[in-house]
Amino acid sequence: MWGWGFVPLARTLGLFRGQECPRHIRASINGYRKIEMPTGKLHIVPLGGMGEFGMNCMAIRWGDDILVVDAGLMFPESELLGVDIVVPDISYLLENRDKVRGILLTHGHEDHIGALPWILSELNVPVWGTEFTLAYVEDKLDEHELLDDADLREIRPGEGFKVGPFAVHPIQVTHSLVDCVALAIHTPLGVLIHTGDFKVDPTPTDNRLFDLHAFAEYGKEGVLALLQDSTNVERKGYTPSEQAVRRKFDEVFAHTKRRLFISCFSSSIHRIKLAVDMAWQHGRKIAFIGRSMNNSAEIAEDLGYIEIPEGLLIHPGEMKNFPPEKVCVLISGTQGEPMSALSRAAVDNHKHAKIEKGDTVVLSSRIIPGNEKSIYRVIDHLFRREAHVIYDDGSYPPIHVSGHASQEELKLIINLVKPRYFIPIHGEYRQMKLHAELAASMHGAVGNVLMMESGDVMEFDELGARKVGRVNVGRVCIDSGSRTDVVEDLIIKDRRHLSEDGIVLPIIAINKLSGRVESLPEIVTRGFSAGEEGFLEDARQIVTQTLELSSEEEKTDYGVIKEKIRADLKRYISKQTQKRPLIMPVILEI
Amino acid sequence: MWGWGFVPLARTLGLFRGQECPRHIRASINGYRKIEMPTGKLHIVPLGGMGEFGMNCMAIRWGDDILVVDAGLMFPESELLGVDIVVPDISYLLENRDKVRGILLTHGHEDHIGALPWILSELNVPVWGTEFTLAYVEDKLDEHELLDDADLREIRPGEGFKVGPFAVHPIQVTHSLVDCVALAIHTPLGVLIHTGDFKVDPTPTDNRLFDLHAFAEYGKEGVLALLQDSTNVERKGYTPSEQAVRRKFDEVFAHTKRRLFISCFSSSIHRIKLAVDMAWQHGRKIAFIGRSMNNSAEIAEDLGYIEIPEGLLIHPGEMKNFPPEKVCVLISGTQGEPMSALSRAAVDNHKHAKIEKGDTVVLSSRIIPGNEKSIYRVIDHLFRREAHVIYDDGSYPPIHVSGHASQEELKLIINLVKPRYFIPIHGEYRQMKLHAELAASMHGAVGNVLMMESGDVMEFDELGARKVGRVNVGRVCIDSGSRTDVVEDLIIKDRRHLSEDGIVLPIIAINKLSGRVESLPEIVTRGFSAGEEGFLEDARQIVTQTLELSSEEEKTDYGVIKEKIRADLKRYISKQTQKRPLIMPVILEI
Repeated sequence: MWGWGFVPLARTLGLFRGQECPRHIRASINGYRKIEMPTGKLHIVPLGGMGEFGMNCMAIRWGDDILVVDAGLMFPESELLGVDIVVPDISYLLENRDKVRGILLTHGHEDHIGALPWILSELNVPVWGTEFTLAYVEDKLDEHELLDDADLREIRPGEGFKVGPFAVHPIQVTHSLVDCVALAIHTPLGVLIHTGDFKVDPTPTDNRLFDLHAFAEYGKEGVLALLQDSTNVERKGYTPSEQAVRRKFDEVFAHTKRRLFISCFSSSIHRIKLAVDMAWQHGRKIAFIGRSMNNSAEIAEDLGYIEIPEGLLIHPGEMKNFPPEKVCVLISGTQGEPMSALSRAAVDNHKHAKIEKGDTVVLSSRIIPGNEKSIYRVIDHLFRREAHVIYDDGSYPPIHVSGHASQEELKLIINLVKPRYFIPIHGEYRQMKLHAELAASMHGAVGNVLMMESGDVMEFDELGARKVGRVNVGRVCIDSGSRTDVVEDLIIKDRRHLSEDGIVLPIIAINKLSGRVESLPEIVTRGFSAGEEGFLEDARQIVTQTLELSSEEEKTDYGVIKEKIRADLKRYISKQTQKRPLIMPVILEI
Repeated sequence: MWGWGFVPLARTLGLFRGQECPRHIRASINGYRKIEMPTGKLHIVPLGGMGEFGMNCMAIRWGDDILVVDAGLMFPESELLGVDIVVPDISYLLENRDKVRGILLTHGHEDHIGALPWILSELNVPVWGTEFTLAYVEDKLDEHELLDDADLREIRPGEGFKVGPFAVHPIQVTHSLVDCVALAIHTPLGVLIHTGDFKVDPTPTDNRLFDLHAFAEYGKEGVLALLQDSTNVERKGYTPSEQAVRRKFDEVFAHTKRRLFISCFSSSIHRIKLAVDMAWQHGRKIAFIGRSMNNSAEIAEDLGYIEIPEGLLIHPGEMKNFPPEKVCVLISGTQGEPMSALSRAAVDNHKHAKIEKGDTVVLSSRIIPGNEKSIYRVIDHLFRREAHVIYDDGSYPPIHVSGHASQEELKLIINLVKPRYFIPIHGEYRQMKLHAELAASMHGAVGNVLMMESGDVMEFDELGARKVGRVNVGRVCIDSGSRTDVVEDLIIKDRRHLSEDGIVLPIIAINKLSGRVESLPEIVTRGFSAGEEGFLEDARQIVTQTLELSSEEEKTDYGVIKEKIRADLKRYISKQTQKRPLIMPVILEI
């Protein structure tokens, strides 16, 4: 089982505190020398996120032991009307369920943790993550009533731990979220470094620095493979620090005369902290609007990432008691999500968030590709309300900075780590390919560059590395309803379900400019039998009612109106028939 | 009928050659002085393009005379599956059909001329345009068998002409297309300047300069209203000259070792000229692939905008006879249009355009918002073919420059023209609003700023300007089939037609990653009766066949596969039933 070869020196100081140091590492503790070398095979098997945006999930296998890194979701494309989220097909893990030792999380973004409820309900294994990451996970599992049965284990940057034949060393990195780690995974064949998502921010708002020293030390000791985030490989230079946004916020707070609404990703803790600090300095009360924004701020405050001085926070309902120049609102919905607080405020359909002439609305985020139309629709509505809208227009200082490393940062890490093998991860095909080319051009720092896509099995042994096959991967569509539903609502719309529950297409003809509905709604079904007389007629009534209760502005915003129709019709059908067909509203513009 | 007031001095030199100079202009020929002033009303009525992207069309009315500026189309949003183009509702013109004197075209882009076949088939009035613009128009009308009956009248920059009570002076401007004009329209109340689309390019490739002097002269004389293009108002500074791209092309031609494919908008005559010139210099043969690219190049060559040296041009079929380093291909499809030559080449489904390992593909164009996913899908396919892909990544020199004026150019024109009224045109609401704010801040150069949207009626008289009502406007969806169909195919999918011909939804479940079709296609119809037994079964067979004849790559590209299914099913239904229902393929990812 063990042969001879060179293995890298382990980091020993504090790394395996309170745990037995793995044998092959202990054996090499005095530096490079000829020692026992394992004759087994190491497999890296990405189950998502490689060749597609989101849904990051990767299996690492040594013999009968499998470790999973991340369990992310993907937000559906517009083709996927009627589903809420998309998660990776985990057949490979289910077929090897007795071998899966657990899931390691790099950080708390949805594309890294969002599939956990679905995966844990199929395969309840331990989950490791940092304090902040686990706080998000707890919230999510609680929502799906999975928390009580979950085995969550907190990890800390710099503190190693063992899982089966692996020893794992989390390394602190900087990103748009807080408490993020890269993972150095010691295997019998050598160390794998998985960067997670990162940028190299020299001045993070929480002063928790990117642990360059750990990467440097591994580079000196020797690394089998570096698996590095490809998201921003198309950007030259360095990604600006989060502090660049502070200068823009400074300007905005100084010049805003009335209410100030700031929308950012609810997970942008750095950004929320910045807004809270500025509001305090400029004498504005803070209100949080939107469920995700509230949750996120609460977690960040609990864990000490944000300090909200006594008396600063007000309930949204109290806003009307303060003059407009004394209020700052942090509001969810920066991607133009149809039912978000900001989208509803933009069409004057939010109880508390009333946007008035002269108010300022800041969109402190990037436009995720595919969301352009929804976002610009919201911006247009805000302009119609005569709000002053600040969004990313390429000017400096920026209103948003990316959380991902640009080319120079990617090269820096490669230079520090000097891996024997380099594997680009997290990206669409072109991004991984460009990342591979970038690494391949760094002759002094990289041994070999390997390209993999989701489903590929890459095998490493003492002779080298090669693709040895493919496993089943794919996208599983989940319709979780309001997303506050309990786990039984986590209905998988796979082939079988589709053919059991069928599809319902409400078809509405809307006059684009007037927002007028030009005919009675039609209901088309397939593979769905309501069983009752008059069901279709009632369903048409439901849709008609939804339309009547919607404003003209909502009716010209297809995203909003489709989502409302879907939600109402779903509630009705579920109540009447206990069935859950896929509901896909179709809008004909006329 | 005529009162007293100030009217601007007309430009007289050569302006009304061979025609009677309009009375009110003649009266003011010696400069500002008190003269007869008309007591009538001038109406400006935008029918499209204001508050939406594309579909530019505007009526200008004085009493019983209406002039129309531009007749553009809009490409449909993804919500509008099943329609090819969208044109403005021209009810206002049809209700006043005896008053419409003709249509003035500013330039030959689709969003300015694309609705002509539809409008002329309803209202056959004279059409004025420059030589190049009319060449595009002729091509388009010929395709719809409308050319013989059309009354096309060529205009030249700097040469004025009369239409009813209006005198029109076309002014040469620079843009991404050639032979573009702004229009100075002399009305009894004063001069309107409509900029059309423009940038201020000091070094256009055809050396036909932006006529700054004309704008300056009008500014000195006094202008009633400036109607200016808002497209790029969000961009600071100046738009780079077309020559900036020459430097990038220089690099690309110098470094490319194998076949070079260049895709740009087929109307980017400057860009095509650049590519042809470079190919000649670098000893590469040129092949044009794609119908629009061929047409456009032919027109540009006929009119002397492009010179193709003897022996440079080869037929696509001849490419295989030349070594890869001796070939340059100009290919249609820069927006990832599903059935375009480039999209098909990217999935290895084009007879002549075979893209091989090491070839270079240049996308010399911007990403039109909404097309991101299709374009990146094509780019990903090209990377998989191991082509070297060059696309706009923000680096300098740029691979594409915009044809629209940025903020400093917009301000320059405002300063030159010094209009009494400023009206932003061509833009979504936020763009027009920002443009209005920009103009409003220029106190020395602008009297009043007016915001209008499509359908608003703005009235001018000797007392001032005001909105006096609205006319019916909207979007009319046209399904022109293969777009080579004759005019009888120009079927308007309005309410009536929809209820007559109904809707057919082929529903297909595709496994995203494998491209495998997971079930038999379903056909759902509403308001459509095939009349025949077995029709649905046959239609399913048609769809199944289309799927079987498509490659795996095509099947994972929804745009392509939907378009193929739609085309095949349409052909079948049309043959079987002589009906033209709306066909909207629905893809379920599973």
